[in-house]
Amino acid sequence: MKLARLGDPGSEIPVLLHEDRYLDLRGVVTDINADALSNEGLARIAASVDSLPELADAASLRVGAPVVRPSAIICVGLNYAAHAAESGAQPPASPVIFLKTPNTVGGPNDIVDIPRKSSKTDWEVELAVVIGERALYLDSPVDSRKHIAGYTVANDLSEREFQIEVSGGQWSKGKSAPGFSPLGPYLVTADEVDSTDLRLRSWVNGEIRQDSSTADLIFNVDFIVWHLSQFLALEAGDVIMTGTPEGVALSGRFPYLTEGDVVEIEIEGLGRQRQVMGQA
Amino acid sequence: MKLARLGDPGSEIPVLLHEDRYLDLRGVVTDINADALSNEGLARIAASVDSLPELADAASLRVGAPVVRPSAIICVGLNYAAHAAESGAQPPASPVIFLKTPNTVGGPNDIVDIPRKSSKTDWEVELAVVIGERALYLDSPVDSRKHIAGYTVANDLSEREFQIEVSGGQWSKGKSAPGFSPLGPYLVTADEVDSTDLRLRSWVNGEIRQDSSTADLIFNVDFIVWHLSQFLALEAGDVIMTGTPEGVALSGRFPYLTEGDVVEIEIEGLGRQRQVMGQA
Repeated sequence: MKLARLGDPGSEIPVLLHEDRYLDLRGVVTDINADALSNEGLARIAASVDSLPELADAASLRVGAPVVRPSAIICVGLNYAAHAAESGAQPPASPVIFLKTPNTVGGPNDIVDIPRKSSKTDWEVELAVVIGERALYLDSPVDSRKHIAGYTVANDLSEREFQIEVSGGQWSKGKSAPGFSPLGPYLVTADEVDSTDLRLRSWVNGEIRQDSSTADLIFNVDFIVWHLSQFLALEAGDVIMTGTPEGVALSGRFPYLTEGDVVEIEIEGLGRQRQVMGQA
Repeated sequence: MKLARLGDPGSEIPVLLHEDRYLDLRGVVTDINADALSNEGLARIAASVDSLPELADAASLRVGAPVVRPSAIICVGLNYAAHAAESGAQPPASPVIFLKTPNTVGGPNDIVDIPRKSSKTDWEVELAVVIGERALYLDSPVDSRKHIAGYTVANDLSEREFQIEVSGGQWSKGKSAPGFSPLGPYLVTADEVDSTDLRLRSWVNGEIRQDSSTADLIFNVDFIVWHLSQFLALEAGDVIMTGTPEGVALSGRFPYLTEGDVVEIEIEGLGRQRQVMGQA
C-alpha cells in the first residue's frame, strides 16, 4: 500500500493511493500516526480498501509528509563508503548515529529556506524507514522487519558550517533548521519494498548529483533497526534516515545551494521530491 | 510558581505547588504543555490560584516529569570548563549541541535501568530550561527571557562506551536509553529564578560527586537560547539541558553506576531528585 497525507500543514488528510486514485482514509484512521502504522492499523487499512471513498480534488492539494511528526528522527551517518570518503572520513566500524529535531519535517515539495548566515546548505537523498511497532533490545536483525511499517524518501538537508565548523564535532547543529527533513511523497508499506537494492538519485537544477543504490549501504536496514534498538526505544511513527551516498556539495565537486536552486531526489519505487530553495 | 505533574506515567495530573499544598490545575489547563507554558497560559494559571481545589492524596502519588514529553531535548555539552577538562576536551569556542530522544524523559524519582551491556553508565546534574514561546532567529541574548517558561532539574544520564567508544564520535547513541532524562520534581517559573548563580550538586550512595554553580557556565542561559535559535526553532515545552559540571565518573575519579546505586541530584531552589538504579 501507498499512504500519503494531503492538505495544508497541520491539517493534512490521510489517504491511500490505489490504482492512481486517492482514497480518503479518515473513516478508518485519524491520521498516518502510530495507530495507523501498527501492524493492526495497517491491516485495518488493507481491509477497508474496497469501501473507501475517493477524495475530491486530491490533485489540487499540497502533499504533506506521509507520517505525522515523529517522536524522533534518527539518522545514520557515513553509511555509504564513497560518501564517507568524500567527507574525509573512514567507513565506520559501527553505525554513527545522530538526531534531527522532529520539527524539521516538511512535505516533499515544500519550499526549503536556506538558514540565515548559511553558505553551505547541502542535499542528501536517503532511504527513510518508518517504524510500525516499538522496538527495544531486539534479539537479532531478522527481528527488525516486524517493527518496520514502511519506507519513504527523505532529504537530510544539512548546513555544513553549522554541522562541522562551529559545532565542536556534534552534527545536530547543522541538521535541524526548519524544513530540513522533507519526507514523502508517500510511504510504501514494507511488504511491497525490497530495501536491499533501490536506486537513489538527486539532482540540482536538473543536473545529476547522486546516483547510487541501497545495495552499497555499509549497514543495511535490518541491521540498523536491530542495532538502534540496543541503545534506545524506537517508537511507532519514528523515522530512521539510513544515510546518503556520494555526490553532495561537501565533496567539493559541486557548489552549495543558493536561493532559487531546485533540488530533486528520487528513490526507485518510492517516488520523487522537488524543493525550490528559499531564504530565511 | 512551581508547577508539577503527579500520577502514574501517562496519566499525570497537572498541579501548582502553593504554600506546601498541591492545587489541582485540571480546571485551568489540560496538562503542563505548550499551552500551559505560554505567557498566556502561565498568566491564566497565576490568575486562578485562589480558586484552585486542593488535590486529595497528592502526597501518595508518583511525581512525574513537570512537563509533558517535549518535541525536543537539546543539550549543551562541555559547558563547564572543569568538566571539559575532566572529559579530556578543551572548553568549546561555540556551544556544542546534541540531542536526546524525547522518550528518555522520566519522573525525578523513577527507577532508571542501566542499559543492557552497559559498564559505563554515568550521572550529570544539569540546569534545564523549559521553553514557553517558540524561538527562531532571536536578535540578541536579551530577547531570550521572553521565550523561557521556567527551569527544572535534569539528570542527563549517559552511557560513556555507547557515547564515545562505539559512536564514531556522535554522542546521541549513549544519551537516549529509556529513562535517561529524569526531570523535576517541579518547574519553577522564570520570574522566580535567577539562573546565573545556582548551586548544583550530585551524590551517589550519599557521597558527594558534583558541587558547582551555574555561575561557572561557559555559555549562560540567555546566550544558549539565543544561540540555539539561530540554528533551529525552539518550541514551547522543549527542554534545554545546559551542561554538567565536573565530578562525573567519566573523570576516572569515581566508579560508574551499578544496579542498586542511588543517585541524588539537586539544584538550589529547584528541588532534588533521587533515582535507584535498576538493570534493563
